[in-house]
Amino acid sequence: MSSRTDYEVFDLGDFELSGGATLRGAHVAYKTYGTLNDSRDNAIVYPTWYSGRHWENEWLIGEGMTLDPARYFIIVPNMLGNGLSSSPSNTPPPYNGPRFPDVRVQDNVRAQHKLVTEHFGIERLVAVTGWSMGAGQTYQWAVSYPEMVPRILPFCGSAKTSRHNIVFLEGVKSALTGDCAWKHGWYDEQPWTGLRAASRVYAGWGFSQAFYWDEVYEEMGYTSLEDFLVGFWEGFFLDERDANNLLTMLWTWQHGDVGRTPGFGGDTERALASIQARAIVMPAEKDLYFPPEDNAWEVERMQNAELRVIPGVWGHFAGGGANPVDTAFIDQGLKDLLAD
Amino acid sequence: MSSRTDYEVFDLGDFELSGGATLRGAHVAYKTYGTLNDSRDNAIVYPTWYSGRHWENEWLIGEGMTLDPARYFIIVPNMLGNGLSSSPSNTPPPYNGPRFPDVRVQDNVRAQHKLVTEHFGIERLVAVTGWSMGAGQTYQWAVSYPEMVPRILPFCGSAKTSRHNIVFLEGVKSALTGDCAWKHGWYDEQPWTGLRAASRVYAGWGFSQAFYWDEVYEEMGYTSLEDFLVGFWEGFFLDERDANNLLTMLWTWQHGDVGRTPGFGGDTERALASIQARAIVMPAEKDLYFPPEDNAWEVERMQNAELRVIPGVWGHFAGGGANPVDTAFIDQGLKDLLAD
Repeated sequence: MSSRTDYEVFDLGDFELSGGATLRGAHVAYKTYGTLNDSRDNAIVYPTWYSGRHWENEWLIGEGMTLDPARYFIIVPNMLGNGLSSSPSNTPPPYNGPRFPDVRVQDNVRAQHKLVTEHFGIERLVAVTGWSMGAGQTYQWAVSYPEMVPRILPFCGSAKTSRHNIVFLEGVKSALTGDCAWKHGWYDEQPWTGLRAASRVYAGWGFSQAFYWDEVYEEMGYTSLEDFLVGFWEGFFLDERDANNLLTMLWTWQHGDVGRTPGFGGDTERALASIQARAIVMPAEKDLYFPPEDNAWEVERMQNAELRVIPGVWGHFAGGGANPVDTAFIDQGLKDLLAD
Repeated sequence: MSSRTDYEVFDLGDFELSGGATLRGAHVAYKTYGTLNDSRDNAIVYPTWYSGRHWENEWLIGEGMTLDPARYFIIVPNMLGNGLSSSPSNTPPPYNGPRFPDVRVQDNVRAQHKLVTEHFGIERLVAVTGWSMGAGQTYQWAVSYPEMVPRILPFCGSAKTSRHNIVFLEGVKSALTGDCAWKHGWYDEQPWTGLRAASRVYAGWGFSQAFYWDEVYEEMGYTSLEDFLVGFWEGFFLDERDANNLLTMLWTWQHGDVGRTPGFGGDTERALASIQARAIVMPAEKDLYFPPEDNAWEVERMQNAELRVIPGVWGHFAGGGANPVDTAFIDQGLKDLLAD
């Protein structure tokens, strides 16, 4: 749909993060699809995921799909740290590189809320949806701004990052930072070995055991297991990604917890119970770091939530847009959610 | 039971590996428990696993257990590459360090067969059993020497390393070798950063998501998630382990396949079908790299095999001896197997 340089930037001014640092001249890069109507009541927020950029969300948007720009005004805000919104890689000294401050999911959603309300003058959304860390931001929207969010569809993500998920990310982080070329973040050139090592760690987690058993990567055009590891995974981590940016987003992910929203005192269950939105929560059957049972635990604590598992062998990447069957399943979930 | 220095060494002489290299003056370090009877028909072989040493197998041996030294003569051969048997760390030049040749599971089992037949004069075993890579060696014994092996109990392992398992190991390997201190294996001191990174990668795989959700590591005496990562996992990889040794065993693991046994021409299914031993195959319910469905596939192709899943949340480490409930379950499996 769009080129990589075709997006807008919203100035956050001096943006105080929940950890105490202030990002001066912070900004959110975003892209919109469709037209905001006169009553400003047709907007959907669809945040990005770990390392993702707005153009990597576009597979779920289009004519004939539920997220049809002819009907809805779809706002895709880039996550802080992703290289387009304020990030280690694009922030001037002194908060550049490894000095970029810790960012919480709450901070991301607060920044997006400013964009939605102050820039677009929107008082109420149609829905929020997102994959993976985008799902985490989706939950956070519903907790932070319950009056604005009548519907959510988080897919392949969670309201609180589980301990196992934290451990998985420790592996990714250790592989990336184990490369001496990383230089504690003060590299001149990307730590290529570390980035490629991190990508190989990720490879076992992103897709299920059965995906590899069935050699489904061949359907994606990869000609061998090693071709998939280099062509897809290493390519993924080398695609204009930056080590410090990845580490910033990884910290955000590891610390994700709606219970940390001001007013909830760390009580995740109470935060979940406070969600007023109707929710369809869609884990992938064989997701190795967001297993369906974690979402089941959440749904039990929510007022109006349905658990709808995406079947099949794609694991976490069921929500990545590469498998048409999974995409159709998620699109149907959105259709059902928005029909009410 | 034993100190780390209390074991025997069997000289393999000039041992030709299946890849073509000859390890001159090769040896298998081993330990026995119990007494070989006069008819030499009470022996059980119980090989070690990835990075394991004979003393780390002893939790399944003892008075009142199925593997009772009062009844059976239990031989625990250390795997080639584990630092006690011939390994990168203990082989003199020119085959030392990273020049240590590739070793297949077939080579390990052939070396063990020499020990069992030539040194002990045993013609027929009671059984072979083992955890993880030890399970792989167990399958291999049944394929390589069907007339000698009437019973096997492989637990948390497979006859052929699955593609996903290979990918998981790629992550471990990449984290270890991404450390510049590794120096392509020509390190003077262990690449500590790489070893610790590899241990953190491993941490997400060794136990299940539910194990972490339930904080079961607290039952093991660890006081926080980070305490478990450092105290258990980093400690595990630093316990007299060596980077080149780990990489040698990792290669063995990645290339495990009973179909590669001479005479089978790479046909894993035919090799499985050739097994004459009665088998009880015991995967762990939530093992993330040896999932039960992989063993189910194998059992369907074997003549006389039962699939008996170890229930619970411990994942791969259900077979590691740390959980008394799982240990009792495996011990019962052995009891049932040996009762015939």
